[in-house]
Amino acid sequence: MSRYWSELARGLSPYVPGEQPRIAGLVKLNTNESPFGPSPKALEAVRAAADETLRLYPDPQSTRLREVLADYHGVAPEQVFVGNGSDEVLAHAFAGLLKQAGPLLYPDVTYSFYPVYCRLFGINYETVPLDAGMRVHTPDYLGRGGAIIIANPNAPTGIALSRRQIERLVAARPDIPVVIDEAYVDFGAETAISLVRDHPNLLVVQTMSKSRALAGLRVGYAIGDAALIEGLTRVKDSFNSYPLGRPAQAGAIAAIEDEAYFQQSRLAIIANRRALTTDLASLGFEVLPSSANFVFARHPGHSGHALAAALREQAVLVRHFSGPRVSDFLRITVGSSAELGRLTEALAATLAAPPPH
Amino acid sequence: MSRYWSELARGLSPYVPGEQPRIAGLVKLNTNESPFGPSPKALEAVRAAADETLRLYPDPQSTRLREVLADYHGVAPEQVFVGNGSDEVLAHAFAGLLKQAGPLLYPDVTYSFYPVYCRLFGINYETVPLDAGMRVHTPDYLGRGGAIIIANPNAPTGIALSRRQIERLVAARPDIPVVIDEAYVDFGAETAISLVRDHPNLLVVQTMSKSRALAGLRVGYAIGDAALIEGLTRVKDSFNSYPLGRPAQAGAIAAIEDEAYFQQSRLAIIANRRALTTDLASLGFEVLPSSANFVFARHPGHSGHALAAALREQAVLVRHFSGPRVSDFLRITVGSSAELGRLTEALAATLAAPPPH
Repeated sequence: MSRYWSELARGLSPYVPGEQPRIAGLVKLNTNESPFGPSPKALEAVRAAADETLRLYPDPQSTRLREVLADYHGVAPEQVFVGNGSDEVLAHAFAGLLKQAGPLLYPDVTYSFYPVYCRLFGINYETVPLDAGMRVHTPDYLGRGGAIIIANPNAPTGIALSRRQIERLVAARPDIPVVIDEAYVDFGAETAISLVRDHPNLLVVQTMSKSRALAGLRVGYAIGDAALIEGLTRVKDSFNSYPLGRPAQAGAIAAIEDEAYFQQSRLAIIANRRALTTDLASLGFEVLPSSANFVFARHPGHSGHALAAALREQAVLVRHFSGPRVSDFLRITVGSSAELGRLTEALAATLAAPPPH
Repeated sequence: MSRYWSELARGLSPYVPGEQPRIAGLVKLNTNESPFGPSPKALEAVRAAADETLRLYPDPQSTRLREVLADYHGVAPEQVFVGNGSDEVLAHAFAGLLKQAGPLLYPDVTYSFYPVYCRLFGINYETVPLDAGMRVHTPDYLGRGGAIIIANPNAPTGIALSRRQIERLVAARPDIPVVIDEAYVDFGAETAISLVRDHPNLLVVQTMSKSRALAGLRVGYAIGDAALIEGLTRVKDSFNSYPLGRPAQAGAIAAIEDEAYFQQSRLAIIANRRALTTDLASLGFEVLPSSANFVFARHPGHSGHALAAALREQAVLVRHFSGPRVSDFLRITVGSSAELGRLTEALAATLAAPPPH
């Protein structure tokens, strides 16, 4: 604490990201990165951007990237917003759209950055409990609130709503902005992007960090009605004119254009998720039905905290959250087959060990 | 305007950056980019970062980059904050430090992003007039205000305060945070970084976009007392955990480590500024004494607006600001000798032409 901090800085409760330790031989299944590298074409584009033109500012509007994303998703470039990772896109959406007179609604178990943004921007919010099966129950979002944000698939549960459920929700709340955070959508859920044409209150947020394997490049985006995008742009242009550097714009364009590589990667991850789910079940875990590149699983005989610690001892990193309803669980990224082999081996050893005395 | 925008979004007046047009053969002297490319070692480092590890999140604390900057500037890593360009660093400083009960003070003629941040974060501010010579008069910042930000050298004037003047100011206002925005300091002004040891209220902001010729990579930083840096980090970690991608961190590290290239570039720009100042004076311009990589100049017989438009017709882009005290002037980036030759040629042709009827 310092006398020079603003009241705002004093009142913050910053987000704590998953660790990025530098330990040799570590099996890193804690931050939902892709086990496969990015598209080789994306890497080549980043390299090609590292030339003398780096002396020049990037295109502040990321025009070409927004055109490529618009083509890909069947919308107009004016319906696309890009930012420095989907976290920055979400931050601008909280400030520009979700800060309303009525409270913002979101699930009680979801991405733990949401309350952090609320604190930063002074947004009043109410959490809506998941149902007994850890599912988002959309009818609970009707009849109250000034805005809604839902992660779909939700994190850390991995459970997805159908497009039809999202459509009913946005249609039932035409008076307020609804943000669907689709960071994990490419691993088996239905995107709501096709709904933006008929629903000017809907903003869909996606990222290149997961299914495009570009977490290290920092590119996220949002798609919605042009007026929503203009609102985000106003916030962005009041914060940082040039959020995406030249290498980031170039790499993101090439990644979107490499459809074959994208499909191959995401299908391999879906296949690995199936195998991981089976392996965990045979070790006695309850595994929530995941549409993401991670699973959320608990063991009836062991606490989540103890299991995470035991895995860490064996150089396997998974994510454990404290807090009601989630502290029994581990969130485990779907890694490569080799990584998942190391995980199940370490888990089997832990479960077989006599309990600590 | 959309019904879904927050009140905050409605009330913004976004910053308008200098144009980044894609016109072949353009002489681009409007956004203070370096005419020389970045360090070849920085380019090589960006290329080397474009490998399979891009699938992983970057180090959220940019530990190695902060260590390298700390070594370079003779401070501790805890005294260094990094962000996605100095605009993002400034944004966090406005939210975390400069938003105080008393009004923020800054010059009436300065970087036009400052009032934009104030609007975004709800900061009350008062501008302090430059003196008759367009200089910052630091005694005017005593006895009032809740925080201070001064660009040194100031923009768009290019005129610098001495370190001694800054020292007297921060010593006279130990009760409030003082931010010195040194985007252009390497072109002939004295940095205030050595003052942070004795002045826990001082934050110094620098950028890699100008003297390191990396505008396209987006890296800026701030140096100050560890408690000030912690305040900025709280805001950053409430906004975006990973503002700098892997290529940006790698390129910035290599750029700082290439001291020989840095010295050669900045000295060449200083030499070109001298030549440009002489050429403009011989064309009848009044040129303010610049310590930056641009000059601010006016001609007694021609409006700034008309001159900028005439240059644009000749594919030479300079920056013109409307508004009291500055609209007579052109802000001209110090380009390469060839670019400056094209500029003076175009200016000479314009000044020789009969006035439009």
